[in-house]
Amino acid sequence: MQKVKIGITHGDINGVGYEVIFKAFADEEMLSLCTPVIYGSPKVATYHRKAIESQTNFALVSSAADARDGVLSMVNCFGDAELKIEYGKPSEEAGMAAYVALENAMKALTDGEIDVLVTAPINKRTIQNEDFSFPGHTEYIEHRVGEGNKALMLLMNEQMRVALVTTHLPLSEVAKHITQAAIEEKLQILHDTLKRDFAIDNPRIAVLSLNPHAGEDGFLGTEEQTQIIPAIESAFARGIRCFGPYAADGFFGSGNYARFDAVLAMYHDQGLAPLKALSMSDGVNYTAGLPVIRTSPDHGTAYDIAGKNVADESSFRKAIYAAIDIFRNRLRYDQAHAHPLRKQYYEKRDDSDKLKLNQTDDDATM
Amino acid sequence: MQKVKIGITHGDINGVGYEVIFKAFADEEMLSLCTPVIYGSPKVATYHRKAIESQTNFALVSSAADARDGVLSMVNCFGDAELKIEYGKPSEEAGMAAYVALENAMKALTDGEIDVLVTAPINKRTIQNEDFSFPGHTEYIEHRVGEGNKALMLLMNEQMRVALVTTHLPLSEVAKHITQAAIEEKLQILHDTLKRDFAIDNPRIAVLSLNPHAGEDGFLGTEEQTQIIPAIESAFARGIRCFGPYAADGFFGSGNYARFDAVLAMYHDQGLAPLKALSMSDGVNYTAGLPVIRTSPDHGTAYDIAGKNVADESSFRKAIYAAIDIFRNRLRYDQAHAHPLRKQYYEKRDDSDKLKLNQTDDDATM
Repeated sequence: MQKVKIGITHGDINGVGYEVIFKAFADEEMLSLCTPVIYGSPKVATYHRKAIESQTNFALVSSAADARDGVLSMVNCFGDAELKIEYGKPSEEAGMAAYVALENAMKALTDGEIDVLVTAPINKRTIQNEDFSFPGHTEYIEHRVGEGNKALMLLMNEQMRVALVTTHLPLSEVAKHITQAAIEEKLQILHDTLKRDFAIDNPRIAVLSLNPHAGEDGFLGTEEQTQIIPAIESAFARGIRCFGPYAADGFFGSGNYARFDAVLAMYHDQGLAPLKALSMSDGVNYTAGLPVIRTSPDHGTAYDIAGKNVADESSFRKAIYAAIDIFRNRLRYDQAHAHPLRKQYYEKRDDSDKLKLNQTDDDATM
Repeated sequence: MQKVKIGITHGDINGVGYEVIFKAFADEEMLSLCTPVIYGSPKVATYHRKAIESQTNFALVSSAADARDGVLSMVNCFGDAELKIEYGKPSEEAGMAAYVALENAMKALTDGEIDVLVTAPINKRTIQNEDFSFPGHTEYIEHRVGEGNKALMLLMNEQMRVALVTTHLPLSEVAKHITQAAIEEKLQILHDTLKRDFAIDNPRIAVLSLNPHAGEDGFLGTEEQTQIIPAIESAFARGIRCFGPYAADGFFGSGNYARFDAVLAMYHDQGLAPLKALSMSDGVNYTAGLPVIRTSPDHGTAYDIAGKNVADESSFRKAIYAAIDIFRNRLRYDQAHAHPLRKQYYEKRDDSDKLKLNQTDDDATM
């Protein structure tokens, strides 16, 4: 098995990005699993590396194509430019640096120089510029390399996978985005990604309600009746094993999530607060539904602890593991489905047609 | 110490109400802690008791005043009326029966016949009638016996206490109810209840944000800037130790809740889904802020398991414990503050004034 080549963006340089990267690759075992390439700034990296007294080394390469196995490589995206590091502070410069690194990695991803992308956290406000006016990585990547496909934000840990119908929206705007069409679309992407990226053959999906107590039969909100239940019924009829809608508090309280391969939550905090409450720092964010594979840790820039050498790299390491697993699962799935087995039966009515072993693959149909 | 007299309503008779009541009092130890009085129907109770093969006995009394220590008593609220029991089904009759029992208990509470009230779950839709048009117990009790005070819905388990700014609202209406005034009001009630009902001297309160990522500096919603932060600052200036706003997912994921005496969440699922995810069936709901004391289990009618003898009574039992604790804490607090200690100092300028031990209590000031 060839090693998976992983592009890594440095994220917001005033946050814990470099710290979790260096800590994750402090364990040399990691280099036996993948070939990592950081998109960043050697100067900034060196500054952070000293601050946390890391022993992790990295080597400069001009492009990911030159990255060698067994080495943590870095593509310098900033030439000789000096970048100001201000631990824990949102700054325009850090936002720009996050954007430039991301753009370089995007190009490498679409050019096939890297197999997958793992992103360190950005500041969603300072990264905004003429070319980046999106609420976050997920929406940007969907737009930039989605090839028309819709992204699905999927968070996972050891206990469960949670996907979101709406992501980075003010709460006041959530309800109007909960439409039958949106839910059906997310259910389809979730179903497909569970099969292709997670190798789950016939996945079971739980759908949460929008309103408290699942709307209590319309008494506490009507979206369950008008949007969610019709979406579940329609998707189910198309072969997606989805169930619900479940009231979020009872669903997580009863441990019911353990009986499903994934949970579709209606909005950010509904899905992520219980997931993270149960997870204890091993959460991974995966941008499902796209031709490219991108994961990230489930924490943010963590400004409050930036530069203090107390950041926990577990989530970042799990994001790397997840990217590798998804890449291999997808490869296996695509290979298995590219050349399906020919039907090996004897045609009863036509002896001449029996078991055409000389048939070429091109004749085979799925 | 006199035993606390606990009024118990039977809730929705097609749900698990009687099952958890009988299971909780199957342990005779419970009768050494309190004097329980069920407001219900002996016929319905007997039916349920048989269904789950319970050995718990109860004695009929004409009013709570006649209830004896060491006995599970019942006030018959339905005379000879036959009530139809249909396990797991919402029905008008069950809604009416829930209402009548609640009304009887309300009267006993205001008349001082019982000290505290513990309610079994109702169906929030079928209980609606001319006199009851409220989203739930909390709002009804506030209206009925609140004496003008505002109720605060407070959920608690072994790990934390979570209070809600908004309770049983469709999600689409939550944002517009998140006002500085509403948050300050809830913070004051929460502060007071932590001191008076939970005997916490100088409580620390965490306030959650409304929007994902705490609004990301206004980028994902503005209520943090316009309502929540001003409310926190104003309450803090008035001596309430409140902090935040914290993004819900990070707050629960980091275990930060362990550093606070209570959490103020903005809406139902935001607070209750993580709380219940962590709680494993020991959650209790307390209606804080009112002159009366009312608790309940944190589960609903559980129609899906009604009559199957699989309901877990832990939460109901904890609701009884909580009611007893709150009653005793409040009594102790009120007694301590009714007659504050006189200042025992020597007035330096006036020898005649020193240590007036013959001062009467009425002269003392707080």
